[in-house]
Amino acid sequence: MPTKAPHPADRLLDAMEALGAPVCVGLDPVLARMPAALANKSAAAALESFSLGVVGAVKGIVPCVKFQSACYERVGPDGLRALEASMAAARDAGLIAILDAKRGDIGISAQHYEEALFGHYGAEWTTVSPYMGMDCVAPFLVRGGAFALVRTSNPGSDEIQASRTASGDSFAERVAAMVSSEGATRIGARGYSSLGAVVGATKAADATALRQIMPSQIFLVPGYGAQGGSVADVIPCFNADGRGAIVTASRSVIYPDDSGSDWIAAISRAAKRLAVEIGTAIRPSRSTVAPQ
Amino acid sequence: MPTKAPHPADRLLDAMEALGAPVCVGLDPVLARMPAALANKSAAAALESFSLGVVGAVKGIVPCVKFQSACYERVGPDGLRALEASMAAARDAGLIAILDAKRGDIGISAQHYEEALFGHYGAEWTTVSPYMGMDCVAPFLVRGGAFALVRTSNPGSDEIQASRTASGDSFAERVAAMVSSEGATRIGARGYSSLGAVVGATKAADATALRQIMPSQIFLVPGYGAQGGSVADVIPCFNADGRGAIVTASRSVIYPDDSGSDWIAAISRAAKRLAVEIGTAIRPSRSTVAPQ
Repeated sequence: MPTKAPHPADRLLDAMEALGAPVCVGLDPVLARMPAALANKSAAAALESFSLGVVGAVKGIVPCVKFQSACYERVGPDGLRALEASMAAARDAGLIAILDAKRGDIGISAQHYEEALFGHYGAEWTTVSPYMGMDCVAPFLVRGGAFALVRTSNPGSDEIQASRTASGDSFAERVAAMVSSEGATRIGARGYSSLGAVVGATKAADATALRQIMPSQIFLVPGYGAQGGSVADVIPCFNADGRGAIVTASRSVIYPDDSGSDWIAAISRAAKRLAVEIGTAIRPSRSTVAPQ
Repeated sequence: MPTKAPHPADRLLDAMEALGAPVCVGLDPVLARMPAALANKSAAAALESFSLGVVGAVKGIVPCVKFQSACYERVGPDGLRALEASMAAARDAGLIAILDAKRGDIGISAQHYEEALFGHYGAEWTTVSPYMGMDCVAPFLVRGGAFALVRTSNPGSDEIQASRTASGDSFAERVAAMVSSEGATRIGARGYSSLGAVVGATKAADATALRQIMPSQIFLVPGYGAQGGSVADVIPCFNADGRGAIVTASRSVIYPDDSGSDWIAAISRAAKRLAVEIGTAIRPSRSTVAPQ
């Protein structure tokens, strides 16, 4: 394994550029869509086998995997054991593991969640809800990184995030300014903060303004592929130098149409398509790549 | 066990009035504060023994217990096993179990969380974050109730929740209006919705306005006691008839000062103090109590 860089943003940027692919494969496994070969397993065993298969399939192709905690939590403590094993496998495979948990609670409870996500499950990054304020976000940044929900990809997000403040900006922009400010004390050697932002690919019209408010945030961009976001939609999420965002796709990669008998090979092919689609559309200038 | 009322709000109101105590004991157990008698146990076993002790101590005194999911998640899958056993014990003791998890995610992931919280762990109510919009809140209302975060008790909540919208109301009030509207289709026989609201006792100045915007929401009121909220602070969270809120206290009940050698008896005494303090301050007119 490579020596672990001290700052989570540096490590994520290095890993994306090493593969020329600012992308992430989302693990949102549901039993109804498991490969036939796993049909006889228990729910938790099927989740684990599938997750280990995906990790093996995308290793060396993408820098990063994102585990949707809900899919594992759904089946109770056994599902969390499957998550534990799957996160460990991702780390062993040299993948950066984002644990997409969207937690948010008062300080002491946030500390408990931080211990669970980063201490117990070994996440390098998580996702966090900003609604309770930045004192509930900061505890997640003790040893890893967190992407705060700013502009989410779901259809109903507009009623809250697009509503206007007294200053005329949108509420998402207000939250973005708080995230930028809170993240400013946690900038790595490559200029990005360990406090990033979730900005959905389906909200491309807002991405340019959010990018200006949050120049030092890495954007985690869900909604590409199955949720409707296109290559053109994700481009405004990147800074002008082609850096600063990571595009995540879940269903379009882990449930490929051409799955057939060898589901692991099919997922590898889908991950390669994702890496090439985004990697060729976004070409960072390589001059400032930091030494590993 | 009593026959389960079909609507979660009816059931919660009936249980509060049967005991004359619109209160909830919060289970936020941390290992550093466990009774000496549990010191030799593993983390998960100590959490479980302590939680079972609290459930037994408050049974018949308060209608409701609130489990802070973070405290159990902190120790990984074994902690979730402890939560599972503790939630089952609460149900067996006739207590209404709120699982305070503050989840919030896109529709399909929210459905997974709903299955975990209500299906697997058997919660009757949960807490949910509104930041992603009401399409992410609705999936939690399929079989139980949910309290949406509206005005939280932590110091940093003002920067988001007290910020002004273009219409001049606070952002918490904007969210309150969405919660009221979303909850309007889910009103029980006693006039309250299965979509409630979290309104912190430390934000008493805002409670009156929020009560007017959300007349049919049950308010879950944290922050009483250890976080600084007083009896006077919680009164505006109730409707004029003395109904519609449940005051939750955690540390002041589960870690009583007079703990001594019999920690379970001390917690019983502290729960009685809480029930009497709030129960005598808030006296609902009894004329409309529904038959059990």
